[in-house]
Formats: sequence, structure tokens, C-alpha cells
Amino acid sequence: MTRQMHMVNSFDPTASESLAPEDRALLERRQRVLGAPYRLFYREPVHLVRSEGVLLYDRNGLDYLDAYNNVPVVGHSNPRVQERVAQQLSVLNTHTRYLTDDVVDYAERLLALFPPHLEQVVFACTGSEAVDLALRIAGHTTGRTGIIATAHAYHGTTQAAAAVSPSLGTNNPIPDNVVLVEAPDTLRHDPATTAREFAARITRGIDELRRRGHQPAAAIVDSILSSDGLQTDPPGMLGPAAEVVRDAGALWIADEVQSGFGRTGGWWGFERHALRPDLVVLGKPMGNGIPISAVVGRADLMEAFGRDVRYFNTFGGNPVSIAAASAVLDEITGLDLLHNATTTGAEAALGMSGAAAGDPGIADVRHAGLFIAVELVRDPETLAPDAARAAAIVDAMRQRRVLISASGRYDNVLKVRPPLTLSSNELPRLLEAFDESVRVTRTSP
Amino acid sequence: MTRQMHMVNSFDPTASESLAPEDRALLERRQRVLGAPYRLFYREPVHLVRSEGVLLYDRNGLDYLDAYNNVPVVGHSNPRVQERVAQQLSVLNTHTRYLTDDVVDYAERLLALFPPHLEQVVFACTGSEAVDLALRIAGHTTGRTGIIATAHAYHGTTQAAAAVSPSLGTNNPIPDNVVLVEAPDTLRHDPATTAREFAARITRGIDELRRRGHQPAAAIVDSILSSDGLQTDPPGMLGPAAEVVRDAGALWIADEVQSGFGRTGGWWGFERHALRPDLVVLGKPMGNGIPISAVVGRADLMEAFGRDVRYFNTFGGNPVSIAAASAVLDEITGLDLLHNATTTGAEAALGMSGAAAGDPGIADVRHAGLFIAVELVRDPETLAPDAARAAAIVDAMRQRRVLISASGRYDNVLKVRPPLTLSSNELPRLLEAFDESVRVTRTSP
Repeated sequence: MTRQMHMVNSFDPTASESLAPEDRALLERRQRVLGAPYRLFYREPVHLVRSEGVLLYDRNGLDYLDAYNNVPVVGHSNPRVQERVAQQLSVLNTHTRYLTDDVVDYAERLLALFPPHLEQVVFACTGSEAVDLALRIAGHTTGRTGIIATAHAYHGTTQAAAAVSPSLGTNNPIPDNVVLVEAPDTLRHDPATTAREFAARITRGIDELRRRGHQPAAAIVDSILSSDGLQTDPPGMLGPAAEVVRDAGALWIADEVQSGFGRTGGWWGFERHALRPDLVVLGKPMGNGIPISAVVGRADLMEAFGRDVRYFNTFGGNPVSIAAASAVLDEITGLDLLHNATTTGAEAALGMSGAAAGDPGIADVRHAGLFIAVELVRDPETLAPDAARAAAIVDAMRQRRVLISASGRYDNVLKVRPPLTLSSNELPRLLEAFDESVRVTRTSP
Repeated sequence: MTRQMHMVNSFDPTASESLAPEDRALLERRQRVLGAPYRLFYREPVHLVRSEGVLLYDRNGLDYLDAYNNVPVVGHSNPRVQERVAQQLSVLNTHTRYLTDDVVDYAERLLALFPPHLEQVVFACTGSEAVDLALRIAGHTTGRTGIIATAHAYHGTTQAAAAVSPSLGTNNPIPDNVVLVEAPDTLRHDPATTAREFAARITRGIDELRRRGHQPAAAIVDSILSSDGLQTDPPGMLGPAAEVVRDAGALWIADEVQSGFGRTGGWWGFERHALRPDLVVLGKPMGNGIPISAVVGRADLMEAFGRDVRYFNTFGGNPVSIAAASAVLDEITGLDLLHNATTTGAEAALGMSGAAAGDPGIADVRHAGLFIAVELVRDPETLAPDAARAAAIVDAMRQRRVLISASGRYDNVLKVRPPLTLSSNELPRLLEAFDESVRVTRTSP
């Protein structure tokens, strides 16, 4: 008998008696047709009916500040995205076996945002599909089977993506050809040696792969190590590891599903680490919620794969998804959201650091752009993780109608990742809710 | 060095000098940024700019009758789909970790179209993702690893879906835990024994899996065997095979990505075979081009998987995709498209049979609803396949601005699969183009 799986910040459906009758009725219907695979966030789930900008509204008209969702990168119900998608739907929506202009225009525009050695793109629909494809390309072009991933990574839900996603838990088997290495730990490491030590762990991981009979094909690393607890610092810490991977004849796959499209204040998270990825995986925010994802990569890899293997994704790069993705680039540029991620992110992190000051249970507030992590510990000396308090703060903020979540290897890291349109105006609400939630969950004096 | 892969009906990019200058310019840009993975249909690709109903329009304003695409099942640029998606985009588009009404409403409505033992649904974005998930569910709930698929099947492009897709060619490795069995062959078999013989092949396939050390977890079969040459008859021929699979303690996964949503005149292709699938995979037409797919299945399987394994698809079941899918159900029902698939499909097949009469190179015209196959042979006695003529007819019809393609194990089967809104009014255009194309490609008297 396998163990039941664990998910941080998930609603316990057996506790539904606490819900309002309307919500309970909907939940019961939902349990019947969607069942166990469908988990809800929060001790008290949120029943949403509409959204605008950084606000979500429940069925009673109450608003929630969304400080969690990176998919609506240019804001919920963004009117430009809406307009472009609606317009395209009335004109043409088909696949890439026909010549169409927009997918080429967008591909050129997207690639211009990458270093020049990344010359081609393949479109898919989800981050999982793009990760799966990147792994296929790596396996095919290197002729090798070994993969390095970080010890608490999440890269997706297809079989191949789940195989490099140890954060899915002990019921998710990690196959023999995947070796896991500890991610850098921003809080616990010495910044002077972290890059070298991570590179050394990758070297040992490659040795381990070879012992198992697998030559290394690729390392796949989330450029901001979101599921490994959001490890941000020091910038550059992934660079030497990428060199080790290249020296071993393997590819570096930068997973930008969470860190991409301006989240960190630059276009891509890997830029902070001054590394040269061979393949880059894009997803979530790419179409502001219209499914679109991509693998960007070296032309020689794409050409070799495309020459030998038939790959076609019916919905990949369809005109409607491309319209949404084009509107997202327009908005990120037009609203100067990279700059906003940098400034508002710094301001938010500073404010949260202030609220955390003197609280011995808050060991660290760190961030890159508008991706902020707060690490909770039971003891400031031992740094023993405090998952319970992290969960309590998440729920306390939800009671104050500010939505965040928690993650990390020990479930003790608050994950604050609002739409990039969050402005200074909305910041006080985030900071007040955080300040109160920190205080009401503090048990020691 | 691996061989270059083969794709039927693909444009040769080295032949671009025959194209108009504008198309050549676009193609050159496309080759630079999208590269080898992106193949175009037809000796002379079609450069599309808009669409309406069953018509596609090129940049010169010329219209093409779409007799190939099943994604726009309720017609290109369908105004109801457009309206519903546009409306939803201005209201709410988020994921299933929050309570929302529409995904539950749609799930109930969808499940009401299935036999009562199929009680739950999990949403994803593409057919590949849904196939991948169905295989994961089968593996997890049976605790087994062996898979049976048909010898020229196509089920998708993730690693796990490609592993059961031998039609992707010799550069696509089929792993040890997958055993391939010959599909029924409507043209070459004896209808009286085909069901029994297919079941016997499945039995031998299961034996082979066991010899390799794999107990059978599932058989995955496209209910209309599209890539195996569109094998339609006799109805019921898959039933005994499904019983063999159940008796072996394995699951039957019905792949309805091509045969689902009214294509065959009923809602689902498996209904023609009076079999009881354990899991059903839905895709392509589900959202008329907005990415959405699903696995429908037995509640016990879904519950066991969902209890043990963390599965979450960020875009799966998002409100916009659900809005599109709801509009598709509205249109299929409101426009009585199941009835239309039956009647117009029969009329089209009859007309094409008439055009084929007396042509020794056309061995069979078969169909189920609005999915029509025409099988080309070099010799009516030996039934030796004629891929060259199939390709010639596809291109001759494209010259007459009627779009179809070819497929099948020997690339010799024309694939005619128009939107289900094709009416009797448009039929003469299809039939005239077919008649002429058959005549101009006929070499012997």
C-alpha cells in the first residue's frame, strides 16, 4: 500500500462542514466528478467568480489580493490579452502545418530576448510538455540517458517531467537514470563557496550516473530553484555548475517556467547566474493563462532533433495562443514590468524584512524581482524548519484576503509571487496582512 | 547516424524556389527561427490568413475547403466559441486550486455523455498530456508496467506517449515494456473472424509482455484506428480484444482524440465497438482549438491515483478552456452535428465511392460518420499499397483547393475528416475535386 501523498497548503475535504452551504454544495459536486486528484488551496478554500488586475473576487463580492499567481503576469483579465485573443478567434486558429505569419513574427520577437546562441524555438502548450520535449531533445542529440536534477525540484507532470520532479513525493518514483543533487541553500550556505560546492555536487552526481551506467545527457535546473525553497543568492552561483555540465558533454536545461518573463527583474532567471543554457523551457506566464509554452534552444540541437524525429504539437503555436503571447510581450514592455518587478519587488521585500525584524522564527526574507521567499524556522540557531508556522501564516493571510502559499523542501518557505502589475499602491495591503499574520502566529515573546 | 524521419504529405523545404516571393520570404524566416521540427503540408504549402466555417482563406483571398481538420469541430472562427471565450477572458481565468463553478458544471455535463461506470474526469491541455496521464494512472493503479498498442498507432509526443506511437517512425524508440500488435485491417480481413483474430493477437501480445517480465497494465487503442489506416469495420471488432485485456487484469484506454465529439456519428468511437473502456482520452476537438483535453475514467482509478500521487495541471480545466469546451457541446447539440456527421458522412462516402467505381487503384472507400478513408493500391488483386498515388491525389485536391491528407501504415490511405459543420451544400465541391483528382492521377486505362 502506498502512502497518501502530501501537499502543503491543501484543504482537507473531510473538513467541509466549516464551509458556507453554497460552497459545501459545490465542493460535494466537485468531489464527485473531479475527485481526489483535485486539491484546493487553504484551510478555507476560496470560491472565485471574477478577477481584475491583482485582485480576485469571491461570490460575495469580497476582493483578495493575489500575491501568488505568476500565470496572470500582466494582470488578471488583462484587456489587451482579451482583445487580441477575441480578435484572433474571429479570424483564424489553426496549426503550424500551414504557413501563417504570426507564429513566425512572435518567434523572432521572442528569440530577440535571448542570447544570440539560442536561435530556435519549438512551441507546446504547457510547461510539462516543454520540459518533456527538452528532455527528449537532450536525450536524442547527445545519445545519452542520464539526467541531473535538484533534490526537491518540480518540473511537471508528464511521466518524463515527473521523473525529474522529486518534490512530487515518495509515491512518485525517480528512475535509475536520474540523479538528484542538493540545491544551493541561500540561508545555510557560505556565499563565498556555494557556487563551488554546488558544482562539486554536480560533479559527484555525474559520477553517480556513470556508476549506474548512464552517461550524462543534461542537467535540468529551475533558474530560481522555486521548489527547492526559492534559492536566490548569490547571483552567479549556478554558473560553475553549468560549466561542469558542459565539460561532461551534457546540456544545461534552464527551466524558466517560474522565473521567466520578467519575474526576477530581467527577462530570464538564468541571466542572474551568467550561464549559457543549451535549452530553455518557458511556460506559465507566457500567454497570461492561455495555454502556451516553448523550448528555446541552440539551432544545432533543434535541427538534429527535427531532422530525425517527427514532432508535432497540434495546439503548439496556434494563432490564438500566439496572439495571447504577443499581447503579453506588449504589456511587459509597454508597462515597463521588468522595472516594476525590480523596484516593487525590492520595496515589498524591504517591507517584509521590516515586519520580520526581531522575530526569531523568521530566518530570512530573500527575493529576486517580484519573487519573494520568507523562511520560517523553529530555532534561529539550528535553523530547524517550521512548516507549521509557514502554514499558519499562509492561512492567516488568506483570512486577511491576501493569497500566498508555501513550498520548499521542508514546506517552511512562504512563496510570494504576485502578478508583475502589482504596484506600490497595493503594497501596503500585502505588507499589513503580512505584518499581522506574522504577529498572530508568533508564539514565543 | 540516425535516418532522417519520414512524414507523409510534407513539403520539401529545399523546393522553395517554386513558391511565390512572399511565401518564400516567410518560409525562409520560418526556417531560421522554427527550423527542422516544423514541417508544412503539401508540395505547395498553403499560406493562411483567415477562416470561416469549413473554409480557409489564403493571402490572395482564395478559399480552400477544409476536409481535413477535426480540431475546429464546430467550424472555423465559430462565433459562439469566440463569444464565450472572449467573455470569460474578461471575467476570470485561473486554476483549479480555487473553487469555481464552471469546471464542475462542465465536468458533470461531459460525464453525462459517457456510460455510468465512467464517473470522473481530469483535465489537461493536449491529447499527448491526457495519453501520458492515462498511462500514468494505469501504471500506478495496476502496479504493472506492460502496455499493448497497435502497430502503427499515434498517441502523442510526450516521451511516454511517443513510446506507444510507432507511427513516429524508426527513430522513435519503442521501449521493452510496450508490445505492438497488428490492428484489424478492414480491407484485407474476413469480417467474420476479424474480432476474434484481433483478440488473439492481443493475447499473444500479453504473453510477449510477460516473457519480457512485464505484467500488462493497459492496452491503448484509438477507437477508430486512424493512424493504422482508419479501420472502421465491422463495428464491434474491438470488443473481444477489450475482454481479453480485462481478463488479464489490465485496463482498456480508449483514445478518442480523433474519434470523439461526434466524429463517427455517435459521441464516442468506442460506442461502435460495444466495449467498456476503463479510461478514455479526449483531445483535439474538445475546445475547437483552445487547448483542452481530458482523461475520463472509473472513479476507483481516479481516486486511487489522486490519493497517492500529486497531479496538477496549471492550465488544465482553466475557465477559458472550459468556456470554449462548453460552447463546443452547445454547438454540437444545438446544430445536431451527430446527425449531420451520420448523414453528410454517408452522403460523402457514397459520392466518393461513386467517383472511385471502376478505378482498379481504389480498393476501398470506408467511413464512420464524417471520417472517411480511401485506400489506394497498385494492384486490386495483391492489394499492394500505392502511397505515390495517395500523395498525388492529396496534391491534386490541394491544387483544387480542397484540403485532405494521407496516412496509414503504408501512407496509402486518404484521410478525409472535415469539421462536423460540413453540409450537403459544400459536398459537391469536395466530390468534384475528388472525382477530378482521382481521374488525373489514374495512370492505367
